[in-house]
Amino acid sequence: MSPLPSRVTLVEVGPRDGLQNEKQPVAAAHKIALVHALQGAGLREIEVTSFVSPKWVPQMADNAEVMAGITRQPGVRYSVLTPNLKGWEAAVATRPDEIVVFGAASEAFSQRNINCSIAESIERFAPVVQAARAAGVKVRAAISCAVGCPYEGDIAPERVELVARLMSGIGVQHVGVADTIGVGTPRRVQAALEAALRHFPIDEVSGHFHDTYGMALANVYASLELGIHTFDTSVSGLGGCPYAKGATGNVATEDVVYLLQGLGIDTGIDLDALIDAGAAIRAVLGQPNGSRVARALLARRSAPAS
Amino acid sequence: MSPLPSRVTLVEVGPRDGLQNEKQPVAAAHKIALVHALQGAGLREIEVTSFVSPKWVPQMADNAEVMAGITRQPGVRYSVLTPNLKGWEAAVATRPDEIVVFGAASEAFSQRNINCSIAESIERFAPVVQAARAAGVKVRAAISCAVGCPYEGDIAPERVELVARLMSGIGVQHVGVADTIGVGTPRRVQAALEAALRHFPIDEVSGHFHDTYGMALANVYASLELGIHTFDTSVSGLGGCPYAKGATGNVATEDVVYLLQGLGIDTGIDLDALIDAGAAIRAVLGQPNGSRVARALLARRSAPAS
Repeated sequence: MSPLPSRVTLVEVGPRDGLQNEKQPVAAAHKIALVHALQGAGLREIEVTSFVSPKWVPQMADNAEVMAGITRQPGVRYSVLTPNLKGWEAAVATRPDEIVVFGAASEAFSQRNINCSIAESIERFAPVVQAARAAGVKVRAAISCAVGCPYEGDIAPERVELVARLMSGIGVQHVGVADTIGVGTPRRVQAALEAALRHFPIDEVSGHFHDTYGMALANVYASLELGIHTFDTSVSGLGGCPYAKGATGNVATEDVVYLLQGLGIDTGIDLDALIDAGAAIRAVLGQPNGSRVARALLARRSAPAS
Repeated sequence: MSPLPSRVTLVEVGPRDGLQNEKQPVAAAHKIALVHALQGAGLREIEVTSFVSPKWVPQMADNAEVMAGITRQPGVRYSVLTPNLKGWEAAVATRPDEIVVFGAASEAFSQRNINCSIAESIERFAPVVQAARAAGVKVRAAISCAVGCPYEGDIAPERVELVARLMSGIGVQHVGVADTIGVGTPRRVQAALEAALRHFPIDEVSGHFHDTYGMALANVYASLELGIHTFDTSVSGLGGCPYAKGATGNVATEDVVYLLQGLGIDTGIDLDALIDAGAAIRAVLGQPNGSRVARALLARRSAPAS
């Protein structure tokens, strides 16, 4: 049995990746309260918001207000999504610790999602990366559809390797391998991660898994076996409703923390406080909790002692 | 990376373990139709019913009727639960291919669930095992609470090893390591399986995982790494409702098949036909589907082509 990492860092993407997918925009005050609850629970990396056109993503129109409203805690890294130079220019005024650019390993997905080819997307990111690094801001990139694509089907690891190489070439410092549609299984996810590892050190490759097919935790475990020790997760599975048809939710932070605790891996996160954070935002949204661990432990809390 | 088994056998427990947990008994005709749909989808081992007192488990009062109503398919093994000699005597008339006895690795759970100590339960099983083997019927045993117990908390692998040794001693031929309350994580599940492997060959040790905390597929994957190639699963997650508080469902057969297919492991099961079988019984029950894979693929079936 290969030894697993002794410590894992979770990047909480609920406030951005999660709430961006809500039909109704959520009030800035609720977003700020969520970030505060998350950092209170021990999260040290939080993807807060996105600097994209409010025409396309009205859910994130309050980006500057949210960034300004957060009481920052030392040791916590606050990141924001910046798809282009215009986004970067708006973002920099809000003092993010890190920016994120979103690429894809699928040509068809790149065209449909960001309206350009993979090569064009890299060209578009290059000046953003340059500007951020000149300002001393870390740059992370996501490689969407790194295992499968809704339009192209299976994605070969060579495609991930190519995008990772291009991202590295323009100065990106960290790359996230994202199974955007949740179709990945352990060995295919490992192959995609290994492709990224050819261009980035193990500290700078993370896994981003969706639980659409229930595979996310098996994929996290398989990633740990490679030594991967950074994962994107979303509190209470924000970004997908477990009751919706074919919901495409991010893996729930609570579920990953439970898995890691069971494996004896340190996360620095207080699971009970995290469950409270997830329950609070789901109450605001009027939605059931997407985390199985939260559902089981909340039921146990309210059950009579046996 | 350790090589995984090339072929896996799934033991479908939905008709028994699943439907036994429904508040309202399900009509025998629906149970028979479910067994037919499951064997049609390629399942080769099916736990059909239970020969227990209808006073305690009215859901299985139609055991003989169900067994008689099945059109048996060559190559399929039909098993039934027989907790004691009385159960065995009623069961044998229905010609099961295999019987199952249920023990536990937790003393408190044994007392509460079957009203006797672990040692007493083994004594009670001994004549049942003897009678079944004399009749040429295979005997499988389940070791409940092999990782955690609702009353005792964590269960040490040594407890599993002890029960496996006792089971082997009375002539049990196969042992299932069951994480009855779903609290297990991969390394702890591997330790429980390794304990059972001290007394049974790899072909005769299976994993039985619940998805209460969403850990079941990670645990299946970790079991495969040990070479375990038999798992109990329940179509559409029968035996737990995904919408109920703290639902304690068996892992869904569909989800395990999807995982195995993704790993390139042969199961002999037609996933589409399996999804139909699960959708049909959930329609009878008027319940949402507990399989994430079924929900995702059923949504894809009904989605307009993109």
